[in-house]
Amino acid sequence: MKIQPLGDRVVIKPLAEESKTKSGIIIPDTAKEKSQKGKVVAVGKGKYDDGKLNPLTVKLGDTVLYKEYGGDEFKLDGEEVIILKEEDILAILE
Amino acid sequence: MKIQPLGDRVVIKPLAEESKTKSGIIIPDTAKEKSQKGKVVAVGKGKYDDGKLNPLTVKLGDTVLYKEYGGDEFKLDGEEVIILKEEDILAILE
Amino acid sequence: MKIQPLGDRVVIKPLAEESKTKSGIIIPDTAKEKSQKGKVVAVGKGKYDDGKLNPLTVKLGDTVLYKEYGGDEFKLDGEEVIILKEEDILAILE
Amino acid sequence: MKIQPLGDRVVIKPLAEESKTKSGIIIPDTAKEKSQKGKVVAVGKGKYDDGKLNPLTVKLGDTVLYKEYGGDEFKLDGEEVIILKEEDILAILE
Amino acid sequence: MKIQPLGDRVVIKPLAEESKTKSGIIIPDTAKEKSQKGKVVAVGKGKYDDGKLNPLTVKLGDTVLYKEYGGDEFKLDGEEVIILKEEDILAILE
Amino acid sequence: MKIQPLGDRVVIKPLAEESKTKSGIIIPDTAKEKSQKGKVVAVGKGKYDDGKLNPLTVKLGDTVLYKEYGGDEFKLDGEEVIILKEEDILAILE
Amino acid sequence: MKIQPLGDRVVIKPLAEESKTKSGIIIPDTAKEKSQKGKVVAVGKGKYDDGKLNPLTVKLGDTVLYKEYGGDEFKLDGEEVIILKEEDILAILE
Repeated sequence: MKIQPLGDRVVIKPLAEESKTKSGIIIPDTAKEKSQKGKVVAVGKGKYDDGKLNPLTVKLGDTVLYKEYGGDEFKLDGEEVIILKEEDILAILE
Repeated sequence: MKIQPLGDRVVIKPLAEESKTKSGIIIPDTAKEKSQKGKVVAVGKGKYDDGKLNPLTVKLGDTVLYKEYGGDEFKLDGEEVIILKEEDILAILE
Repeated sequence: MKIQPLGDRVVIKPLAEESKTKSGIIIPDTAKEKSQKGKVVAVGKGKYDDGKLNPLTVKLGDTVLYKEYGGDEFKLDGEEVIILKEEDILAILE
Repeated sequence: MKIQPLGDRVVIKPLAEESKTKSGIIIPDTAKEKSQKGKVVAVGKGKYDDGKLNPLTVKLGDTVLYKEYGGDEFKLDGEEVIILKEEDILAILE
Repeated sequence: MKIQPLGDRVVIKPLAEESKTKSGIIIPDTAKEKSQKGKVVAVGKGKYDDGKLNPLTVKLGDTVLYKEYGGDEFKLDGEEVIILKEEDILAILE
Repeated sequence: MKIQPLGDRVVIKPLAEESKTKSGIIIPDTAKEKSQKGKVVAVGKGKYDDGKLNPLTVKLGDTVLYKEYGGDEFKLDGEEVIILKEEDILAILE
Repeated sequence: MKIQPLGDRVVIKPLAEESKTKSGIIIPDTAKEKSQKGKVVAVGKGKYDDGKLNPLTVKLGDTVLYKEYGGDEFKLDGEEVIILKEEDILAILE
């Protein structure tokens, strides 16, 4: 089953939070409540602004930091995913 | 009787929620309150933005995931349907 | 006496709600508080957006489904009518 | 003394409300609190939108239906008038 | 000392309110709290909208009707003046 | 040390308020809480609107009247300054 | 590990606040709660406005004054950083 988010929406699979990742990123307790890491599993085609389509910046497979609130959770093929708007994605981790 | 939603509105027939669908999608309890699955039974012609018509993305027959609140419920030919704006549709399930 | 609504406003004559119409539409109790059926008796000339006139979609004689709140009620030639903006009209019933 | 309202503002002289007018219009009690009839005695030159002037639709002498709240009352040559924006005028009665 | 208001701001010297002016205008008690008469003593150069400068409509010396709230009062050369935006000026009295 | 405010922000050094200045300006008690006089010590390069840069109106050295709230206070080289947006500056005193 | 903030977002490494810096800047107690100094460690590519990309003003390595609230904190390679939008940056200190 494929999922196609609408407009500027993105589907994200949350990554397990570790106290310390291999690359050295530690997400502190307070931040755990506000932002999370995840993998992009589906992206919308973009949003029309003034008659022009603005494509999204994030791509399939990107690891992103996102705001937890603002998204809707559901299960896709047994795994929990989150649908949110790209404006709720803070940064891409490369 | 035919129904023609105005602008960027869409008419949706809710699909019965199963704990586990054939395709493997499970909608958890908390999500059940926020998003739902349905079939598109009528679509508006789009919304004018800056003098140009932006047609809708969803098409007749699409299975969609939508936010429950924000729509108006009524009965069409004996079946319950929901009228909502396309921006309240999260994704198309293919 | 003629009434000419301004801009994107529409004058609607409410239709009596029946528990079951001939065409099979039943408006449930909860929906009765949120949307209603009516006949369009006068339409505005449209609204200017960015210097261009966007004409209205509904036409004289259309049977429409509209949101009850948001309109102003008054009597025209002894019959109760409602003036509302087209954005508060949900759909045209054909 | 002449009064020149600014932008999209209009000066209106309220008409006495009768329970039943000659033309058959009756304004019910509940509506009396929300809309009123009046005569246009001065109109602004319009509002600039995106560098273009949008002239007003109502003209001197028009009988209009308007929302009571939103306007400022004062006396002109001994008679009570109301200054409001054209968007608070619902319809022209012809 | 000269004062140059910024953008769409205007400096106004309030006129003493009389119960009845020579020209016949009477400002009732309730209106006294919401609108006032004054003389324009300085005008801003206008506001940029979409890269174009929209000059103000009121001119030096105009007698205007304005909303009392929304402005900032201070004293210029010993006389009380008010700085407000042109949108808070209701009409020019000629 | 130099400070370069961003966009439409301006850095202002507050001027001591006197009950009566040489030029005759008196700032009354009530106004003292809402507006203040200061000297412009740094200006931003302007704000982009619709892809065009709108430069600021105030210049280095201007004496301005500004709204007290809305700005952020800090100390620059031992002297208290305020950073605010140009829209919170009411007028230039010449 | 590299971090690429999205749109008009900026990643900032807070600088330790001293009561008096070498250059003479003293940040008073009240301001300490509202604005802070930091070093820019990553910048977004800008935000689309009306189909055109507006690049950011701040550059890698800039020392900036920013509003504390409005940003999301997390740890990058063991050091605390903040992600915020450029509009929450008040000024560049040179």
